Amino acid sequence: MSYTHFNLTTPTEWVAHVEINRAGKLNSFHEEMWHELGEIFTKLSHDPNVRCVIFSGAGDRGFTSGLDVQAASKGPLMSSEGSDTDPARRATFLRRHISDFQACINTLETCEKPVICVLHGIAFGLALDLASACDIRICTKNVRCAVREVDIGLAADIGSLTRLPKANLPFSWIKDVCLTAREFGADEALRVGFVSEVAEDKNKAMQRAVELAGTIAGKSPVAVQATKEVLNWSRDHSVQDGLRYVQVWNSAMLQAGDVKSALMGGIQKKKPRFEKL
Amino acid sequence: MSYTHFNLTTPTEWVAHVEINRAGKLNSFHEEMWHELGEIFTKLSHDPNVRCVIFSGAGDRGFTSGLDVQAASKGPLMSSEGSDTDPARRATFLRRHISDFQACINTLETCEKPVICVLHGIAFGLALDLASACDIRICTKNVRCAVREVDIGLAADIGSLTRLPKANLPFSWIKDVCLTAREFGADEALRVGFVSEVAEDKNKAMQRAVELAGTIAGKSPVAVQATKEVLNWSRDHSVQDGLRYVQVWNSAMLQAGDVKSALMGGIQKKKPRFEKL
Amino acid sequence: MSYTHFNLTTPTEWVAHVEINRAGKLNSFHEEMWHELGEIFTKLSHDPNVRCVIFSGAGDRGFTSGLDVQAASKGPLMSSEGSDTDPARRATFLRRHISDFQACINTLETCEKPVICVLHGIAFGLALDLASACDIRICTKNVRCAVREVDIGLAADIGSLTRLPKANLPFSWIKDVCLTAREFGADEALRVGFVSEVAEDKNKAMQRAVELAGTIAGKSPVAVQATKEVLNWSRDHSVQDGLRYVQVWNSAMLQAGDVKSALMGGIQKKKPRFEKL
Amino acid sequence: MSYTHFNLTTPTEWVAHVEINRAGKLNSFHEEMWHELGEIFTKLSHDPNVRCVIFSGAGDRGFTSGLDVQAASKGPLMSSEGSDTDPARRATFLRRHISDFQACINTLETCEKPVICVLHGIAFGLALDLASACDIRICTKNVRCAVREVDIGLAADIGSLTRLPKANLPFSWIKDVCLTAREFGADEALRVGFVSEVAEDKNKAMQRAVELAGTIAGKSPVAVQATKEVLNWSRDHSVQDGLRYVQVWNSAMLQAGDVKSALMGGIQKKKPRFEKL
Amino acid sequence: MSYTHFNLTTPTEWVAHVEINRAGKLNSFHEEMWHELGEIFTKLSHDPNVRCVIFSGAGDRGFTSGLDVQAASKGPLMSSEGSDTDPARRATFLRRHISDFQACINTLETCEKPVICVLHGIAFGLALDLASACDIRICTKNVRCAVREVDIGLAADIGSLTRLPKANLPFSWIKDVCLTAREFGADEALRVGFVSEVAEDKNKAMQRAVELAGTIAGKSPVAVQATKEVLNWSRDHSVQDGLRYVQVWNSAMLQAGDVKSALMGGIQKKKPRFEKL
Amino acid sequence: MSYTHFNLTTPTEWVAHVEINRAGKLNSFHEEMWHELGEIFTKLSHDPNVRCVIFSGAGDRGFTSGLDVQAASKGPLMSSEGSDTDPARRATFLRRHISDFQACINTLETCEKPVICVLHGIAFGLALDLASACDIRICTKNVRCAVREVDIGLAADIGSLTRLPKANLPFSWIKDVCLTAREFGADEALRVGFVSEVAEDKNKAMQRAVELAGTIAGKSPVAVQATKEVLNWSRDHSVQDGLRYVQVWNSAMLQAGDVKSALMGGIQKKKPRFEKL
Repeated sequence: MSYTHFNLTTPTEWVAHVEINRAGKLNSFHEEMWHELGEIFTKLSHDPNVRCVIFSGAGDRGFTSGLDVQAASKGPLMSSEGSDTDPARRATFLRRHISDFQACINTLETCEKPVICVLHGIAFGLALDLASACDIRICTKNVRCAVREVDIGLAADIGSLTRLPKANLPFSWIKDVCLTAREFGADEALRVGFVSEVAEDKNKAMQRAVELAGTIAGKSPVAVQATKEVLNWSRDHSVQDGLRYVQVWNSAMLQAGDVKSALMGGIQKKKPRFEKL
Repeated sequence: MSYTHFNLTTPTEWVAHVEINRAGKLNSFHEEMWHELGEIFTKLSHDPNVRCVIFSGAGDRGFTSGLDVQAASKGPLMSSEGSDTDPARRATFLRRHISDFQACINTLETCEKPVICVLHGIAFGLALDLASACDIRICTKNVRCAVREVDIGLAADIGSLTRLPKANLPFSWIKDVCLTAREFGADEALRVGFVSEVAEDKNKAMQRAVELAGTIAGKSPVAVQATKEVLNWSRDHSVQDGLRYVQVWNSAMLQAGDVKSALMGGIQKKKPRFEKL
Repeated sequence: MSYTHFNLTTPTEWVAHVEINRAGKLNSFHEEMWHELGEIFTKLSHDPNVRCVIFSGAGDRGFTSGLDVQAASKGPLMSSEGSDTDPARRATFLRRHISDFQACINTLETCEKPVICVLHGIAFGLALDLASACDIRICTKNVRCAVREVDIGLAADIGSLTRLPKANLPFSWIKDVCLTAREFGADEALRVGFVSEVAEDKNKAMQRAVELAGTIAGKSPVAVQATKEVLNWSRDHSVQDGLRYVQVWNSAMLQAGDVKSALMGGIQKKKPRFEKL
Repeated sequence: MSYTHFNLTTPTEWVAHVEINRAGKLNSFHEEMWHELGEIFTKLSHDPNVRCVIFSGAGDRGFTSGLDVQAASKGPLMSSEGSDTDPARRATFLRRHISDFQACINTLETCEKPVICVLHGIAFGLALDLASACDIRICTKNVRCAVREVDIGLAADIGSLTRLPKANLPFSWIKDVCLTAREFGADEALRVGFVSEVAEDKNKAMQRAVELAGTIAGKSPVAVQATKEVLNWSRDHSVQDGLRYVQVWNSAMLQAGDVKSALMGGIQKKKPRFEKL
Repeated sequence: MSYTHFNLTTPTEWVAHVEINRAGKLNSFHEEMWHELGEIFTKLSHDPNVRCVIFSGAGDRGFTSGLDVQAASKGPLMSSEGSDTDPARRATFLRRHISDFQACINTLETCEKPVICVLHGIAFGLALDLASACDIRICTKNVRCAVREVDIGLAADIGSLTRLPKANLPFSWIKDVCLTAREFGADEALRVGFVSEVAEDKNKAMQRAVELAGTIAGKSPVAVQATKEVLNWSRDHSVQDGLRYVQVWNSAMLQAGDVKSALMGGIQKKKPRFEKL
Repeated sequence: MSYTHFNLTTPTEWVAHVEINRAGKLNSFHEEMWHELGEIFTKLSHDPNVRCVIFSGAGDRGFTSGLDVQAASKGPLMSSEGSDTDPARRATFLRRHISDFQACINTLETCEKPVICVLHGIAFGLALDLASACDIRICTKNVRCAVREVDIGLAADIGSLTRLPKANLPFSWIKDVCLTAREFGADEALRVGFVSEVAEDKNKAMQRAVELAGTIAGKSPVAVQATKEVLNWSRDHSVQDGLRYVQVWNSAMLQAGDVKSALMGGIQKKKPRFEKL
């Protein structure tokens, strides 16, 4: 598979690496890109050769500067399309557009395999929508994050405002960064828990991501996918609903051959091999 | 507008400052006060001249020591009113009273504009109910916070027990401070995320609050209010419900002139001016 | 009351201490044990002589190493029982088994009295399910925690995956430790908020737990139980539902004699005594 | 208490009758009216002399023809107020207006005492918003109901679209009448369950309402209010949440002297008298 | 298995019949009885020889007259136990008691096998709590139903007020019968949907129940249990959550041998036999 | 647009008619068909020339007999694909398959325009999943409906079990027809509310559907789409959440030119024309 705006590689067995490939424009996004992103993650979700995904941006300058403002200013949000109609029809047009945009980004969260996001350098606006939809976030020391929507007069949210409160970051801090659009760096990101790890530079961060992804890919894919699924379900439901869901999910999953393989591996002190999923 | 128990000032353009004005009694609250507080924030919520609110307590000694115990002991909770009736009628009387009390405090959260709470010195009991209902919390180094309900034999909750778990503070810590009623200071408040910033003293904290409020007030009020609204909605709903709500909210809000103003401001490198809201 | 697999003692007035008593096997659990645990906490929940509970593991080596793998390999999850039937019937068998297991662990959460968990040394797998169901977690410096399910090919969750996201720990961190099964120690546990306190060693941790439990036990049991109840309810409901629940709960609870006792105690500067509950 | 747009009478002990008093204009509503309505029901909710409320329209022609279109066309929805601003600001203006309107109608539902709605003749548009917020609906044979919003190009909903699906009426029927704006009469209203009773004419309907209200007012007000509260809560929550709420609510309410009075009344075969609430 | 207060028989293969056996007292319930009921249904839930359950009352006079008032007047609700303590402690005592009572009745709903309730003659108070917790309700022509709580000054709800709104009966009708405590008969019960069938007399009703139970018991138990489970889950969740739950539940259940058996049975035109569950 | 398995016509202005075109096989479905169905409704949802959709089956014999059993027996559910793997992997395969199937049927519900389902003759199994996902259901006198899953040993649910309880049909009746798989006809369907209208025969039913669709298509499309959206949202949320959603939705929609057109139309007594949406 080869894509126009993203590089797709396999840094290590069972691991896919999706790299935003538009370094010249600081990996900023236009509409065609988020549609392609949605396509990629929809495929990876069911690809039996993939057990963990790394998501990062090409080049030294940053993960992504967010929306490509020039493209956006010609795109549907700013374009005059539908502007001759009344505000209700324009609203319908915009709602459909946001819905479609959200659906593309949402594939990062609904991807059955864990997604590790590597944030380096500039990570503005859409960068946080993307990162929030991933499972694990690590960053470099030089990262510069910002929720930019209030700064460009836009309350448009493709997931940051919805997912940050669910990422269990202190609510006072979330409101501070979302209402001021101020930047925050690696130390702060780690302290509040937005990222779970900070690496010296991009190389180190990528090494670490590959290592982490390799570890996860070495586990039973049945167990790994169940873990992602149950954690996400639990985030959005009561504990009682969570416990019930786990019962039902695992009533099938505990029948996996992986359980025996893992136990045997443990006893025989050698790394178990698990069937594809 | 002038009030009996609160000072209402305008420290900088678009910013309102509500100060509890009962320093002689450590800004402790009696019933008349929370009704006036409710009135104030209900008005500020729709006041087009206000884009951000600061909430603090007068004097050096503290934000507020909570309920005025002397007044409370004569008030409805302790008074003999309704006590000659049976426990069911007394319960109805108390439920209505708590409901009414909560409704007043709730205006801090439902105020459409962000509310920044400045905590200094003593901040006991009701102090935390109030602070939890605000959007951003900053404190001074000398702050002394305590959830006091268990200490006065009261499980009465005007919002702390309900909002602290939703403020994304570690649950083990929440239970520790709520079950022991022990004090905690600025360092601990910052570490767990109850506040997002600590200032050297009250002056510095107020300066910082005004600066922060000024920053927020300088942004598009359409974007700022949407941000507060969507963050609060997302806290209480699933991610899917959050994303849908954002679509609908923004289908109208993206039609604001602010988007163009902000973009132009960005290109022309000058601060945009936004219409009232 | 005397139990086979647990020691039940009273380290200080109103405080019960439940100790896993299988140090020879690193306090690992077999089925009989979680049933007995469920029985114990069901009784403590309504025991008027108990106002706070401490939960810990016997011996120096650790809190618990989790499931007794040898016992488990002969138990229902691994046994051939039901394996001659089709996967649907096997699934039903497993679902019932997980449901029953969860119900036992759930008694820690539904126990009306606060439960303080002391984690020392090894705390693997089931250790985290147990600890997550407790109210307050403290640990020793030498603690070694790990969510082990992905490592034994099992996605079986008896509560960790459901409760960790609700314990308000950073979601990126939760996914990191749950997907990699890596160990984490005391510093990390404190930093992310999994524990609210770290003690030098097991003795110090137990002393601290008894002190904490004693403090809580000294408060009005009406207020303490209401606090646990309302915090847990709020975790799983919207703020509006939480505020309503508090109104109703406290309409009865504010009629407790404890309120007067506590107020008098405060005025007369002596420790109030509260009636049993 | 005397009101401008409504007659407030006491047809029988403990029963209040609120009558829309604008027969000349077919009881159609303008803004001042719904504010007064909100005031009335807020007062009745806590009035210890009222145990049940009847709500109806004056005159022969009908309950209400809904919004006073002439007034509305000069009112905020149609007025040019805010129309010089951009669509986002106009949307904010409209949202606040709808919110305020809904809050007034909502007092019918939040009134602690049951509200019986009598529908006769014309009952269009707002009539259904009002009726849906009441507890019991009875109508006359000549009633002509219609959900009119789609007919006047308005999707404005003050509660019909939200409450009809929760009134347990067949969803296919709800969509039929809401999407076509067609009229439906007494037989259909009874068949689908929108009303629970049909009377020959307005006199009979009023007699029946007074009889029904008298019956309810003769019961323990503690039990009656609990019944309304728990039914409404259960409508919006899961069965488990409903059962828990009942436990807590009744832990206070079962302590009412009413229980003894009712039991004694039953044994002594005479109507018990209950204390005010 | 033999029980004190209930007859347990097997009217046809795979069908259990639980009969309230206290005809002399109109099958009225005292505390020991609901505990035994809970025990019975907990066992039936997992009994592989049972695929459908019928629940009815012995004798000609009625299903059950509800609580045994004489017993109740000596029981915990009315007894002086706990009455020397303050209202808060009494409330705790009552809450625990209601919770325990609800848990027993709840076993009818959580029983994995469908429960058919046959209502005849007197069916007052607790009768409706019991019937509401069953899956299918049929009644005789002479049935006399009443929600009696408001008549005995009690708002105590063991499930009627919580489950009737979820049984999709018209809300106006529910409030009518719950607020007036009036009786309703077979025709009304069928018209509003409380029962799905009316039989001429008790004999016919029992015959019909056995026939119905036999039909259900002849289907794949995997499919039958899934159907009950998914319908109950869907009642309490959104459609999206329902669809997801179905996916997960059936991912295991579709692997049943029953699918092949049923298909073969269909092709070969003979009744398939299904393995126990 | 032309399709393989469906006829797409325009019986009257603004109305699309989707007809299942496989009368030879009683309109039974194989996998290719539900994918095409999903495609069609996804397109219609945003097609500005369509304001209402009719959905029916070709031929005299029936709407659809459900799954094409022969095709299904070769399809993924029955095929040996994945059967050589363990039950956990097979479960994953099945879950993805059900999810995909549900997503296709779901397009009927998420289609922004109302969908009227015409049921005639045979309407078994999948027929009810399809019909439940539509907005308005009408049927012919000779309709024969059945929820067939339990009869073919399948608990597979593509939406019936999830949506019937939300269609506000009596729960006892739902469980009766879902657990017995028995047929029910037009009278019963109307009595319980599954359909809102019965027509003499298929011709009459189609005429009626076109009439109904024409009526709806003549209304403001802004109002019609809002009505469908808000009713569906309200079904799945609390009344408070419903009211809030309406406020936000209508803050944009009330700005439609349709409001003025409709008002003018009313005054000038001529049918208003509304802009496309």
